[in-house]
Amino acid sequence: MIKTPDWVKNAVFYQIFPDRFAKGTSTLKGQWQASKYEGWDATPTYQGYKGGNLWGVIDKLDYLEDLGINAIYFTPIFQSASNHRYHTHDYYQVDPMLGGNAAFDALIEAAHKKDMKVVLDGVFNHASRGFFFFNDILENGPNSPWLDWFVIHGWPLSAYDGDKPANYQSWIGDRALPEFNHDNPQVKEYIMQVAEYWLHKGIDGWRLDVPNEVDTPGFWQEFRDRVKAVNPDAYIVGEIWGDASYWLDGTQFDGVMNYRFTEPTIAFAGGENYDPQYCQGELKPYPPISGTEYAIRIDALLKLYDWEIQLAQLNLLDSHDTPRMLTTVREDKQSFLLSTVLLMTFPGAPSIFYGDEVGLIGGKDPDCRRVFPEAEKWDVEILKAHKELIGLRHKYPSLRTGSYHTLYADRNVYIFARVLDEEEIIVAVNIGQEQSLAEFVVTELQSQPSNVVYGSGRLEWHNTTNANKLEITLPAKSSLVAS
Amino acid sequence: MIKTPDWVKNAVFYQIFPDRFAKGTSTLKGQWQASKYEGWDATPTYQGYKGGNLWGVIDKLDYLEDLGINAIYFTPIFQSASNHRYHTHDYYQVDPMLGGNAAFDALIEAAHKKDMKVVLDGVFNHASRGFFFFNDILENGPNSPWLDWFVIHGWPLSAYDGDKPANYQSWIGDRALPEFNHDNPQVKEYIMQVAEYWLHKGIDGWRLDVPNEVDTPGFWQEFRDRVKAVNPDAYIVGEIWGDASYWLDGTQFDGVMNYRFTEPTIAFAGGENYDPQYCQGELKPYPPISGTEYAIRIDALLKLYDWEIQLAQLNLLDSHDTPRMLTTVREDKQSFLLSTVLLMTFPGAPSIFYGDEVGLIGGKDPDCRRVFPEAEKWDVEILKAHKELIGLRHKYPSLRTGSYHTLYADRNVYIFARVLDEEEIIVAVNIGQEQSLAEFVVTELQSQPSNVVYGSGRLEWHNTTNANKLEITLPAKSSLVAS
Repeated sequence: MIKTPDWVKNAVFYQIFPDRFAKGTSTLKGQWQASKYEGWDATPTYQGYKGGNLWGVIDKLDYLEDLGINAIYFTPIFQSASNHRYHTHDYYQVDPMLGGNAAFDALIEAAHKKDMKVVLDGVFNHASRGFFFFNDILENGPNSPWLDWFVIHGWPLSAYDGDKPANYQSWIGDRALPEFNHDNPQVKEYIMQVAEYWLHKGIDGWRLDVPNEVDTPGFWQEFRDRVKAVNPDAYIVGEIWGDASYWLDGTQFDGVMNYRFTEPTIAFAGGENYDPQYCQGELKPYPPISGTEYAIRIDALLKLYDWEIQLAQLNLLDSHDTPRMLTTVREDKQSFLLSTVLLMTFPGAPSIFYGDEVGLIGGKDPDCRRVFPEAEKWDVEILKAHKELIGLRHKYPSLRTGSYHTLYADRNVYIFARVLDEEEIIVAVNIGQEQSLAEFVVTELQSQPSNVVYGSGRLEWHNTTNANKLEITLPAKSSLVAS
Repeated sequence: MIKTPDWVKNAVFYQIFPDRFAKGTSTLKGQWQASKYEGWDATPTYQGYKGGNLWGVIDKLDYLEDLGINAIYFTPIFQSASNHRYHTHDYYQVDPMLGGNAAFDALIEAAHKKDMKVVLDGVFNHASRGFFFFNDILENGPNSPWLDWFVIHGWPLSAYDGDKPANYQSWIGDRALPEFNHDNPQVKEYIMQVAEYWLHKGIDGWRLDVPNEVDTPGFWQEFRDRVKAVNPDAYIVGEIWGDASYWLDGTQFDGVMNYRFTEPTIAFAGGENYDPQYCQGELKPYPPISGTEYAIRIDALLKLYDWEIQLAQLNLLDSHDTPRMLTTVREDKQSFLLSTVLLMTFPGAPSIFYGDEVGLIGGKDPDCRRVFPEAEKWDVEILKAHKELIGLRHKYPSLRTGSYHTLYADRNVYIFARVLDEEEIIVAVNIGQEQSLAEFVVTELQSQPSNVVYGSGRLEWHNTTNANKLEITLPAKSSLVAS
């Protein structure tokens, strides 16, 4: 029987890109201050550092708590010669610019004191050119004793010379990212021990970077076994953009970054506002889809995985790997807020990419990684909506773990219910430019939720002997949640 | 007033090159076994690894104790992509091939249980291309926030492309060894904290690699202050090949690797056997010198530094940086043993390069770094002489801290005394091919040492009212120690 961590089902995640969220200070020994950063507010570049750190995150935990966040997913924090830190230099050291292991320990303690979970990004498919075992190969060539930690095709290695082919296996051919040879039992053991080490240090789970690239049989099964042996409640969430059935069989991950939710949600709620230039790889929320089509796609998604998995999915509208949704919909605030309603009422843990909640914009990487803005620049309407919706999710267990029932869909409107025991919640969204009226028979509910707890619109129940009919009126581009 | 650690004055050091001394095993977690080493007995190469480790050293502590060793100087043990580990990748990690920090902790405990001191090699002038802060510059170019940790002359960095000039400051122009920018206070602080960290972990001192290359005013003075603040008894010994007066003023090092002793000692005791092809840089024991010349040079050396410093010098016949003495004298065993007598009876701590005591040979680097041989290959005569001489040094305090008096010198013969309180020891060496007879008046001694405790030969005292005359007869190429 598939089992996923209960806390995830009740979590609201906040995704932090550490270089860009907040900059704090510490007088502890071993805090190295770089002398030169890219301007905090300047447009992000591929290689510049802003200098955000974990001390800054600690400073902002009150803010996150107030927002309703109870779990943080950090993009990588280990020592890395890249501002996004996906190029791991040392899996056992938190990056010195982030405050090092001392800042990490302080963060874990502070977060746990607030009952906030901490999930780290595990980049276990590839390392970097500076990673010790690869660096030894680079320095010693065929004499390296660590040759079989990577897959080398020829000598001399052309690790830094772009004029020659990268003659070793690297992720998507990027010579900066040599891929581990996972078939080497020593390498496998090394990665397992890294995973165990940070769990022992207190983290609550691992987000796995491109885990589909690791095809050594049994690798992720052993990973799950060893992670759960340290902490049975640890969360394992994979970065799988497409159909993740293979990894969500209960023996590997608890959930995935649910871009399969993202795509139809933006295609529906973003609609014609979505700018197709932002389509990428497996995330193409274009062309726009109707509410009817959305219902079909959501229904299919909910049938794709076990319900226990559904409740532990990491649902998101955007991330460090995508443009920010507000930007993709040409900054149409209502499109973004309607999507946020769908996100916050969907089974699985919603994840907010830092700054989305205050209206931060940004196009493709690296633009989507702008710094978290000062309070004067916040969009207070967006922030208020986030707080309300997160509050509702925390208030109503059915929004977290209740069953899901599509009640109605047409071109512009999508209506569904979440049901847990006696508690029944209705969520309705109208993406149209005009007021909508939906009339439909309801057979799935025992009660008649009529109390609008979020948004605007009207519900009217018409009860006959044969059926209970519900009329929902929604203003243009609006939504409601009723209890 | 200059003060150096008392334990050094009484120490007999053993210098270990960890990749080549001994290979042990451990079942501890996190012990990474490379799949491929250079054959243990094969001729060493510049880049091959043999796979010696600290577990192996622990296994051999009984052997070292039996030999009379009470201090070990390790060439570098930190994580490094080079078999000699002078290319530091991480100053806080013991190399995984050596057994990592777990093996280090076990070693410190085992050594200290035997009252053996442990001195590590501090390579603080330069790092390596894989060292994090340099690697960040390599990866991010001018965008790196750590630019001022090194001295960069131009872009793009040509760190691995030998066809282009190495456009950053590196040790002797070797692009593999980027030099720290010691003028950056953050860099200085970083190095100081590394030094403190390992002292807190239990080491007894630092041997400093090429410290003359660091010319930031006050750097080594602060280093001494901070090292001694953690452990006032910690030993600081610099690698200075020439006149080290500047560094031996009492505010910087306790001693240096005393190649100024090595050179005349080999030139005298090696004599015509010395092969001048082995002369190098500041170590040129050629042409041969007479006993008379040796007396002059030793006298000058003993006047060069404060007596407190003399007693804390690290005296040696060879090291990982030189050919083995036995090889330089065309394997003339007597030349080597006569030098060893002079080494073991000189003020300052003698240091035996691993394997010298069993007759290990080897030419220039990397040949001088052969593996420690199996017992069947030991030269038992050489080993016996080492044990006897070390035993005498431990038995007679005057050989360690007694004053030094040259008594007699001629072409082939050199005779001196060590005096401490009532204890007076005479040491005599004849490097000639024939028996020698030395007759001389002795004014420096209160007693008349006549008891030959090492070597062969005869002492006869002739006492008159005017003077005490001593006649010492030595067989060809022999020595004696008399108490």
